[in-house]
Amino acid sequence: MTTSEGFIAPKFDDDAGRKLAIICSKGTLDMAYPGLIIGNGAVQEGIETHLFFTFWGMDIITKVKVDHLKVVPVGNPAMHMPQFVGGLPGMTDLATNMMKKEIEKLDMPPIHEFIEMVHDAGAGLYACRMSVDMMHLKKEDLIDEVDDIVGAMEFLEKAEGAQLLFI
Amino acid sequence: MTTSEGFIAPKFDDDAGRKLAIICSKGTLDMAYPGLIIGNGAVQEGIETHLFFTFWGMDIITKVKVDHLKVVPVGNPAMHMPQFVGGLPGMTDLATNMMKKEIEKLDMPPIHEFIEMVHDAGAGLYACRMSVDMMHLKKEDLIDEVDDIVGAMEFLEKAEGAQLLFI
Amino acid sequence: MTTSEGFIAPKFDDDAGRKLAIICSKGTLDMAYPGLIIGNGAVQEGIETHLFFTFWGMDIITKVKVDHLKVVPVGNPAMHMPQFVGGLPGMTDLATNMMKKEIEKLDMPPIHEFIEMVHDAGAGLYACRMSVDMMHLKKEDLIDEVDDIVGAMEFLEKAEGAQLLFI
Repeated sequence: MTTSEGFIAPKFDDDAGRKLAIICSKGTLDMAYPGLIIGNGAVQEGIETHLFFTFWGMDIITKVKVDHLKVVPVGNPAMHMPQFVGGLPGMTDLATNMMKKEIEKLDMPPIHEFIEMVHDAGAGLYACRMSVDMMHLKKEDLIDEVDDIVGAMEFLEKAEGAQLLFI
Repeated sequence: MTTSEGFIAPKFDDDAGRKLAIICSKGTLDMAYPGLIIGNGAVQEGIETHLFFTFWGMDIITKVKVDHLKVVPVGNPAMHMPQFVGGLPGMTDLATNMMKKEIEKLDMPPIHEFIEMVHDAGAGLYACRMSVDMMHLKKEDLIDEVDDIVGAMEFLEKAEGAQLLFI
Repeated sequence: MTTSEGFIAPKFDDDAGRKLAIICSKGTLDMAYPGLIIGNGAVQEGIETHLFFTFWGMDIITKVKVDHLKVVPVGNPAMHMPQFVGGLPGMTDLATNMMKKEIEKLDMPPIHEFIEMVHDAGAGLYACRMSVDMMHLKKEDLIDEVDDIVGAMEFLEKAEGAQLLFI
């Protein structure tokens, strides 16, 4: 337990026992990143980190969708397009491509690669059982990084003592 | 304090003193369920559970609206409809009916019945005073399960020591 | 340390050491207020309060945008307009003006004034470094009340032991 015996001190002693549980309920590109960015920071700091995917957030961990998440300009005034323009065909793809380019410039990985990184670093990834059932998904429809499909009770158990975020 | 004397051990000893406070700020069907599902699980586990309704979430506890919550395909790419189709008349009702059917198949109760269940199980339900005033509502406009109308200060007091979720 | 020596007892003894960290990720008027209302209540109660602004929430602390946040009727069924009407030109401004009037009636300050109030009362205000970079913003583009631009790691440090809200 001394450095002379090769003991490696954890980077953040204060975070021993600290837990973070993030519920990801949205399937848009702009709401997929915040959970991964915070989750990645947390797991890097040695915080026990769990990510739960539910409702629209299921898209983030569904094989056929994870690489096709979009930003939607309609209903989002921060995109600075009049709403009736945002609703025109092609505008969602335009906004999505714009954001993907900006994210790439910041050296942020694409979603699936980011998930792999966070998972490899030790974060737990869980799909919501009810959402799996509602969307008629099977375990094999989900990306390999998903550790388990869990119900509300199992979520609550894993989240005990954790700081919570609902995204 | 021993089982031989008839003491009934709580199901989740660890959850003694555990608290959860959920703020429900959205009035869509898809964002009404998550708060109720998590709240229901929590109260079943013996966690002290409080639900606060504010802004658009007021619809969930307003008599004339609770049975008419909708899913909105516009602005939601996970619905897998081009945005300009989602904006056409009738599409909101279509998406809403689709989700209601799926929820029924899972044996999940409709929203009002679900609220009653969670409330009967012991969860506290509160309306945000500022939202009540802003929307010109009166206590009698709210469903009977609402325990009280509270301000931000009272919310903070009730939420002391609780895990928080903002939905 | 006695009242006779002029010691002023804190209003809420129980809240000593209590912390609240609010992440504001949305740039609409209706989602800007909840963070400020809860943050204001918290700081008034003597709770250590931090507000982090990220993604669309950056609009709330950007000089040229803070006074022009909007409510968007499209994608929001609680606005009680058919979706195809909400998408017509002018509808966003109409909904925005309606909400601003209601907020004024409640004696709630406009967003920038509210931020100043919360900041003066002692809350910390932080911009997300990644969002600043992604949106090509500079420190001088942000309102003066922003204390610092921080990364995910600094956020996690400041949020240690805090109750969390993601809005």
